[in-house]
Amino acid sequence: MRMNDLIVKKRDGGALTGQEIRWMIDGYTKGDIPDYQMSAMAMAIYFAGMDMDETYQLTMAMLDSGERIDLSGIDGVKADKHSTGGVGDKTSMLLCPMVAACGVKMAKLSGRGLGHTGGTIDKLESFPGFSVEMTEEAFIRQVNQVGFAIAGQTADICPADKKLYALRDVTGTVPSLPLIVSSILCKKLAVGADVIVLDVKCGSGAFMQTEKAAFDLAGALVEVGRRAGKKVVAVVTDMDEPLGSTVGNAIEAHEALAVLRGEYRGELMDLCLALGTQILRESGVAPDDETARDMLEKAVSSGAALEKFAAFVKAQGGDNAAVYDKSLLPLAPVRRDVLADAGGYVKHIQAEDVGLVSMRLGGGRAAKGDTIDLGVGVALYKKVGDPVEAGQRLATVFARTDEAAEEAVGMLRACYEIVPEKVERAPYVKGVVK
Amino acid sequence: MRMNDLIVKKRDGGALTGQEIRWMIDGYTKGDIPDYQMSAMAMAIYFAGMDMDETYQLTMAMLDSGERIDLSGIDGVKADKHSTGGVGDKTSMLLCPMVAACGVKMAKLSGRGLGHTGGTIDKLESFPGFSVEMTEEAFIRQVNQVGFAIAGQTADICPADKKLYALRDVTGTVPSLPLIVSSILCKKLAVGADVIVLDVKCGSGAFMQTEKAAFDLAGALVEVGRRAGKKVVAVVTDMDEPLGSTVGNAIEAHEALAVLRGEYRGELMDLCLALGTQILRESGVAPDDETARDMLEKAVSSGAALEKFAAFVKAQGGDNAAVYDKSLLPLAPVRRDVLADAGGYVKHIQAEDVGLVSMRLGGGRAAKGDTIDLGVGVALYKKVGDPVEAGQRLATVFARTDEAAEEAVGMLRACYEIVPEKVERAPYVKGVVK
Repeated sequence: MRMNDLIVKKRDGGALTGQEIRWMIDGYTKGDIPDYQMSAMAMAIYFAGMDMDETYQLTMAMLDSGERIDLSGIDGVKADKHSTGGVGDKTSMLLCPMVAACGVKMAKLSGRGLGHTGGTIDKLESFPGFSVEMTEEAFIRQVNQVGFAIAGQTADICPADKKLYALRDVTGTVPSLPLIVSSILCKKLAVGADVIVLDVKCGSGAFMQTEKAAFDLAGALVEVGRRAGKKVVAVVTDMDEPLGSTVGNAIEAHEALAVLRGEYRGELMDLCLALGTQILRESGVAPDDETARDMLEKAVSSGAALEKFAAFVKAQGGDNAAVYDKSLLPLAPVRRDVLADAGGYVKHIQAEDVGLVSMRLGGGRAAKGDTIDLGVGVALYKKVGDPVEAGQRLATVFARTDEAAEEAVGMLRACYEIVPEKVERAPYVKGVVK
Repeated sequence: MRMNDLIVKKRDGGALTGQEIRWMIDGYTKGDIPDYQMSAMAMAIYFAGMDMDETYQLTMAMLDSGERIDLSGIDGVKADKHSTGGVGDKTSMLLCPMVAACGVKMAKLSGRGLGHTGGTIDKLESFPGFSVEMTEEAFIRQVNQVGFAIAGQTADICPADKKLYALRDVTGTVPSLPLIVSSILCKKLAVGADVIVLDVKCGSGAFMQTEKAAFDLAGALVEVGRRAGKKVVAVVTDMDEPLGSTVGNAIEAHEALAVLRGEYRGELMDLCLALGTQILRESGVAPDDETARDMLEKAVSSGAALEKFAAFVKAQGGDNAAVYDKSLLPLAPVRRDVLADAGGYVKHIQAEDVGLVSMRLGGGRAAKGDTIDLGVGVALYKKVGDPVEAGQRLATVFARTDEAAEEAVGMLRACYEIVPEKVERAPYVKGVVK
């Protein structure tokens, strides 16, 4: 087999066989196939596409390039969740305790990643002492005892994906449906949960900008995931503004606690209920969506979910007190309000740009190994559809210095689009693909 | 400027600016832009194309990546010829002396290249002692005195093209119109002739398999070449069977001499007349095509072209006697005829496969530095449209060993398609683009 022949076959619209795909991914992982051939192949796939069978084969070949986590020591059904990424996404901090309180185990591995804010791990490290470093045995034990755990990824999962993603990132080949599907699923399959719920974002702040693109991705993820023998459901949700009312690290933990305590709901709760409902139903602990939803609502209102969260933070070495006293979470001292210039209705909040504000304040990571400031961030008091009066507070910036705060206020004001006419907010959950 | 942004721009159908293209080619030549980004860009260009302005800018950027030959020491108009490549193409050996005999100088640089036979240089080395190694001064002097010279390429012409072509060759990105156009023209512009005639082959044995693709390439070559200030003409010719009656090295020199001597014409003479006509007219030595054609015919019939060829071989250190006594040219001793199984008409001769026969016999080069056997090859007595009787000789193989000859006979027979009904041969020259 010659890689050049495979590139030509794909370029001319042919379908690669499972054997060809496996040979290619094995060779690329080992370094026998050079980056310059793989990037040309990725671009050919961008233009010529891949059918479901090719996408499935690619997913499995990438899965088999590395280790798998053995979750067999966990009792009962194991669930996992993945989001295609969005600004202000603190879903895991809410969803895991809610689902665990209803009796479904969640075993999550998480990375730090690059982006406008840190990853879930960074956000959780706002609880003093919290750590994601643990052995596989401790991880399994905690899931069995507490109901969920969030650990850092140490096993060498899907090295082919790691290598290919880094290449795609610098060769204009990230936005290709089969490449996205295989990249997401191979890692979820390596972790090995029985039920996988995928949160596919769509809108101006998301990777998939149109609803059609998001539903196409959702459909492909579900089809390939089911073919791999997993119970996979995808929920397509809106990302036309940041998710929830905060963007940052400790400030997002603040918000998660507020929602778990029932002080506040918003689209963040809508999303967690939508995702949790799919998990409970697919896991078999709830017979239908309505029952599942009721169980989740009750887990919050009863305080059971908050207790699960407290147990989780403690099990991973974190300061439990901060769960009950939010003032123990570190927020940056310099605070500046963003006020509305004129009255009207919020039509749009440029999510990507709000993310950049967090990044500029020091809350995100541009390169691997960068340290981030957990205390900085923004709180958004007005969201899309909300009425606003002139001079009213739209948002607050949490910064380290006056200069940084001033700059952030200017940037943040420009993220808001306020119009005189009433704005109808579209439903947050666009649909479920199962 | 970031290469990833340029890849995305091209991928999404944007036109790159001259500045962007120059930055990219400079960076790639220097090694600042890695192969893996350039191959993704090449694949994006394959799919998204380039407009004429981009193609021109790419050509000029590649031209400027290296040295240029200074032909200003040559008196009068200088012409050059390029062929997109075909099996059995010995045109330079005929065209140069014919054109030179009519008073137009030809300064040709040639490479050895890879392929089914050697390049023009290898074919000429069949004349004992012939050498293409000479200083630039000696080259200029010979062109002035003899009328033409064929030298090996030593100057560092278009290193960007050399690097990019090697990359395209292993990344499925060779057949892209703008990449082909820029690759051909940058090298011709670096040599710097005033008149450039391009022989664009089309058909099953050519790179451009359809007439439309060949005319598209011809049109783009002429448009970009004229924009670069040169008199460029493209002749689209047939390559549905090997060119002329021989494929090999010394055996092709044999055929060239036979045609120069007027012993034989065929499509080889048609092609040389078509190319030469364009050169003479564009050079201004002939007022129109008819006059140009008459001059070329006369150069052959008078023996002037043969004398030019003899003077050329002598000037470059070759044995002159072999020009007048073909038996001095080395042909391999083991000869086997290919006989027709049945009568009928030759419908098709698979050019690519005839080339493979030459390759298998040892007449071609698979890797740089391979030595080739100048004496092996094939003679084709029957061409497309010819009537054939059962048992009649179709071709002869010239081999080193019995085994090689036997194998070649079998392969060569399979190249011939003979049908019962009469076959009309399409005209050899499909059209001229100027």
